[in-house]
Formats: sequence, C-alpha cells, structure tokens
Amino acid sequence: MFTILPIKGYIDQIDGFYCDGIHAGLKPNGNNDLGFIYTKEACTVAAVFTENRFQAAPLKHFLQYGENFKTNFVLINSKNANALTGKKGIESINTLFSQLDFGSFELINPVMSSTGVIGNPLPIEKLVAGAKKFDLTAKNGENLSRAIMTTDAYPKTCMYEVKLENGTSFKIGAVAKGAGMINPNLATMLCFICTDADAPYEDIKEALNINKDTTFNAISVDGDTSTNDTVMVLANGKSNAYDKEAFSEVLRLVMHDMAMLMVADGEGAKKVAAFEVINAKDDKQAEIAAKALSNSLLVKTALFGEDPNFGRIASTIGASRIDCDDEKLVISYNDVVVFNKGEICFDAATEAKAAEVLKKDKYKIICDIGLGDGKFTAYGCDLGYKYVEINADYRS
Amino acid sequence: MFTILPIKGYIDQIDGFYCDGIHAGLKPNGNNDLGFIYTKEACTVAAVFTENRFQAAPLKHFLQYGENFKTNFVLINSKNANALTGKKGIESINTLFSQLDFGSFELINPVMSSTGVIGNPLPIEKLVAGAKKFDLTAKNGENLSRAIMTTDAYPKTCMYEVKLENGTSFKIGAVAKGAGMINPNLATMLCFICTDADAPYEDIKEALNINKDTTFNAISVDGDTSTNDTVMVLANGKSNAYDKEAFSEVLRLVMHDMAMLMVADGEGAKKVAAFEVINAKDDKQAEIAAKALSNSLLVKTALFGEDPNFGRIASTIGASRIDCDDEKLVISYNDVVVFNKGEICFDAATEAKAAEVLKKDKYKIICDIGLGDGKFTAYGCDLGYKYVEINADYRS
Repeated sequence: MFTILPIKGYIDQIDGFYCDGIHAGLKPNGNNDLGFIYTKEACTVAAVFTENRFQAAPLKHFLQYGENFKTNFVLINSKNANALTGKKGIESINTLFSQLDFGSFELINPVMSSTGVIGNPLPIEKLVAGAKKFDLTAKNGENLSRAIMTTDAYPKTCMYEVKLENGTSFKIGAVAKGAGMINPNLATMLCFICTDADAPYEDIKEALNINKDTTFNAISVDGDTSTNDTVMVLANGKSNAYDKEAFSEVLRLVMHDMAMLMVADGEGAKKVAAFEVINAKDDKQAEIAAKALSNSLLVKTALFGEDPNFGRIASTIGASRIDCDDEKLVISYNDVVVFNKGEICFDAATEAKAAEVLKKDKYKIICDIGLGDGKFTAYGCDLGYKYVEINADYRS
Repeated sequence: MFTILPIKGYIDQIDGFYCDGIHAGLKPNGNNDLGFIYTKEACTVAAVFTENRFQAAPLKHFLQYGENFKTNFVLINSKNANALTGKKGIESINTLFSQLDFGSFELINPVMSSTGVIGNPLPIEKLVAGAKKFDLTAKNGENLSRAIMTTDAYPKTCMYEVKLENGTSFKIGAVAKGAGMINPNLATMLCFICTDADAPYEDIKEALNINKDTTFNAISVDGDTSTNDTVMVLANGKSNAYDKEAFSEVLRLVMHDMAMLMVADGEGAKKVAAFEVINAKDDKQAEIAAKALSNSLLVKTALFGEDPNFGRIASTIGASRIDCDDEKLVISYNDVVVFNKGEICFDAATEAKAAEVLKKDKYKIICDIGLGDGKFTAYGCDLGYKYVEINADYRS
C-alpha cells in the first residue's frame, strides 16, 4: 500500500535537484529563455521522444549516449528548436557544451532540449554568455518554468509525495510546456519529470511507455507532431525509497496532469471534453475514432458554441474509417443519450438536457460503437474566439 | 487522335438532358434548394461515393439498384443531408418518389442526392410540393447549379466538346458543389457529370476510379469526409460517338476542373498551392505527405502570410511519418530551392525570390524526399481572414 499526496511547489522541492531560468537574449521581450536542471551526482535518465521522422538535433544528441546512461545536467532553451539543422545542429551542441564552465561543478554527459523556430542554427554565443549567469546551487523552479514557455498561457507544473508502507517516501514532480490543440504555432511539448525515488532505468522506461498512450498521446493527433517533443525523467535516488507499483502509478498521475494542463491551454479554450470511444472493434480503432473527434474543427466549434450537434460527432467517426454501423451507434453527452442505434433521441427535453451538459467546462462525449470491446479516451478543447483572433493577427 | 475544346454553358447544352432548380422552402432566404436532371430515355449511370463509414440514405438508396442500372431522373436537394437517418431515411426516399407525378414523363429508377444538415428526417411534404413546380422540358443549368449550393461562394461548372478522328463528336459537362478545405461546415462534395457520349458502363466506372485519386481525392484529407460525397456520371449515348481514350482523358479534365474550383473555394482563400511530393519511397507515402501538407493549418497560414517558412513544410512531412531523411530532403517554391539535403539555402537573395513566388496566386511547393520514385500532388489553399471571421460568427 502507498499513498500519493499532491504538494505545492516546483521541482526544486526535490532533494538534490537545482534549477533556474534566465534571459539570454533570445526572446525579444526580455523574458526568460534559457534554463537548466542540475544534480550533483549523475542521475538515471530515461526519455521518450517525438515520432516525427525529423527529430531535432538535441534529440539526436541525447540518443548518441546510448541506452541507460547517467547525466547531471539538462540545458533547455526556447525560441530556437535546433531542428532541420543536420549534422551541424548536433555539432553545435557539442561546441556549446565544450564552452560551458561552471568551475567546481562538473558536467557529466550533459543533455539539451530546445523549442522554438525550426531551421535556424543555434545561437551558441548567446547561450554560452547566458549560461555564465547560471548559479548551479539555485532552486528557482518558477524561473525555469518560464524559461521553457513559448505559446503557453501559464506554467505547467505539479508535485507529489509518495509515502510507502515501510515508512519511506519519495517526491516526484514535473515542469512542462506545450499546448495540446492543433494550432499554427505547433507548440512543442517538453516535459521534465524529476524524482528522488530510487527508480531503476528499466522500470522508468517501462512506466513511461505504458503511460504515454493514455496521457500525452491522448491529447494529440499522432502522439506528437513537432520535431522536438520530449518527455524526460531524471531520478537521483536520494530518498532511497522505491516501489515499482507506486512509482508507475504516480508517474501516470504526473503525466496525466501535464497532459490535461496542455489540452486546456488551447488559445482561448474554455472547455475540455473527454471523447470516450467504447465497444469499438478493437482498441486501435477506438483510438483512431477518439483522436479524430478530439482534433476535429467541426467538433471543436460545436463545443465552443455549446451545441449538442451529434451529427458532427457521428460524421467524424464515420470519416475516421473505423468499422461502424449507425444501427449500433449510441452517442451520449455525459448521461444524456442523443442518438441510439439508428434512432435520433432529440426531443425538446433531451436537447435541453444535452445543452446543459455542454454548458459545463468539463464533460464526456461517449460514443458506443457497439461492435467489440475496444476502447480509448482522447481529450480535446473547444475552439474559441481568442484562437480565431490570434490566427487573424498571426503575422504580427 | 481527338481534340478537346472547352465550351461555354451548363449541362443543359447537352442533347437530351433537361434540368432546373427551384425554391422548395428549405433554404430560409428564398434561394433555390431543389433541382433535377432528367433524360427522356434512361441513361447509363455510374457513381463513386464517400468512403465515410456512415453513408447517407440517398447513397444507400442508389446502391440498392445494384450494378449497371439505368436511370432517367436525379433529384437533388440542399439543406438536409438525409444522413444518420437509418432505415427510415431510405424509406422516406421511396415514399417521396412514389408521390411524384409528372404526367406523361415517366420516372425510371429515379435516384437522389442530398446535402446539408445531418440527422434530420427528409421534409417529404415540402419536396413533393416543390417538385410540382418542375418542368421536365426545362434547360436551366444555372438554376440547378444554385439549387445544390450550400457554402459555395460560386457555382461550379464546366463543359467540353470532344471531336473524334472519324468526324463524330460528343459533349461532356459537370455541375458541382463543395469546398475543398477543412472547415466547420464540412461542405459535402456533389458532382454530376453529364454526357451524350455512347460510353459503356464499365468504361465509365473504370475512368471514374482511375481519375478520382488525382482529382477529388487530391484536394481532401482522405478522399472525402462527408457522409454524402458523390460523383455521378450520366451517359445517354445520343451522340452515337465514343472513343475510350478520349473519354477517359476528358473525364479526367472535367474532374480536375471541378476539384480545382472546389479547392479554390475555401472561405476567403486567395491562393492555390500544388504540393508536389516526388521521390518518396513509394506513391502511397508521397500521397500521405502531400495530403498532410495540403491540410496543415501550419502550412495554410504560412501561405496566407506569403511566408516561405520551409521549416513548417519539413516538420509536417516528418510528422506524417513517411520515410524521410533531412540529409536527402530538398524543398523548393517553384524553382527556388530553400532547403537542400541538410543545407538551409536561405540567404537574403533566396529568401526574397521565395517570397516573390508566394505572392502569386498559384504555385508549386516541391518536396523531393530523395528515397525512391513515389510521387503524388495534392492541392490546397491558404487560410484567410474571411475564414477566421466566418468561424468567429458561426453561431449566427
């Protein structure tokens, strides 16, 4: 048995982790754009990356270390993705690290994450000059959080404490950036999860892979679309506490929290809908339909308009090409059934109840395909006026 | 040898075809919403339909006639898609046809097409009353064209005359509706192609299937997304002229014309881009990448902004998951190369030339994947202010 308690604060709360963020001159408005995470002793690190076939240079650089290496330093910058920069992009990271000097603080297998414009070379001089401002004993989680933000409306963090049966406990927390909806800015998703749990590499890798499909992949089209998407876990073991089941469960919670913060951060979004597809022919088909729904502009505008337009829901499912049959399909908004196996249940009373559900800021749209036992839940948000304003002004 | 000449006018120009459109009370603004195509003798008819798994009632009704039947009457309405209406939806079509009476004009295997709101029963009484206004000797192609429009900005038609080597000739023309871009209205695509060519059913079916991938399917996400998409060819043979090669080529031209009219009819769109993906691993991969590009909001906004942002082009190709390698990729705007196998070719001069290309209203974006000989061209338009205005006002 174990208990998981949410606690306040940033990843700097965790024993042995240090972090900060500063302005290195990349963002024109003076905001933070360069940050770091540092640990004295090298950590176990595991990551999952974008499936975009053009992985950015920092991802390729990380992968050069091979499986199960240890690191004590993560450098993170915004405004430049160091993507589509070929071999030179990776070389520039090596050059950058070779020029960093933190005196008695030695860097062990340093890694990097970048987010921002694709196709421009990394501004090494500015980053080296900015890193001179780093104090590796700093515990400034909020500064780090702001340094990695690009189009985010707010910082995305969480912290948990896990108490194990034997009296030991460990902490785990995350700092992330990214927005879950399709938008012209293609906001890269970066998520750094730090823990003092004594978690082995294989367990971390396994838990990341088990949980990514129902969390980060459930808020996006294909799990990822940017060249830079990264989820990285750093475990320094300083608590000497660990339980496989507890760790997997709290990691799932952390990833779920971050994913929900991202999906709610669509420009101007006011609502989050869970598209619960059940009884599809198999899980894969359920996933295809659920993601088609969560990403459909048709559906998103109906959510914004608080319009129980089940015709769009059904049409989107049909367009996703999964096996389906209108004589078996059942569509509900929370517990209000609006379409039942070929019968439209849309009398005035039902329409009013459905409209009430859509006035809430969180609800489920349940689509029972009626052909098997496949299921998947995808999360999406509405398409609001603010999104539209931002698109119209995107050239400025 | 044969010659194909574009000619003016609507499908009523073709010997033996009659058509008209009237207001039956479905559109609230008094515009035409009910039309027909009629021929005295029954025609050969072939159709390709949406691959959406929820085919609307009129499609199912058509399919009930089986392969290679003859018809002399097509009834078309807008404002109501008769989709998601189950068995009752098909029955209502039979009821409707049983109540139509045109005196000495006998209906042979009549078929129907509908476009509009999904999930509402067909308003049979209004349609029967409206049909009483039909004059089956009318030749009013423009009225028909307006009757089938929903969100279209303009009627979509074309006409060609084909002169064969032996001195005979035939005509072929189309009337269509639909917009090619993703939009909240999910504008159904309907295209009726009429000809007096003496074309056999098998040839028509073959030519439709050969040409749909490079025309209608090249302007959309998966070939179609609506529950009602239809391309229907009616051939009455009255010219006694036919040549298989000539017919296939002019049918391709007709389908291409209609597809191009649709893709240019995005709300407020000002530009049409051809996304030419070449040297992909195979044709299927080329198609996947080309369609990812033509439908990407990222890319569409860059086109609107006349911004040669090749980073978005590359990222979208990578996100489509096809095999690719940035050390082999070459991206060009018309003949201006901006990315060449890992090298960014974006000095001031090149950037200016690329920006010049993007100021045009038609251009190619050529993506050479460099891994095989697969190719596909998809067409898309830019995302303009008007689209954004319409989305913001969609509730009104």
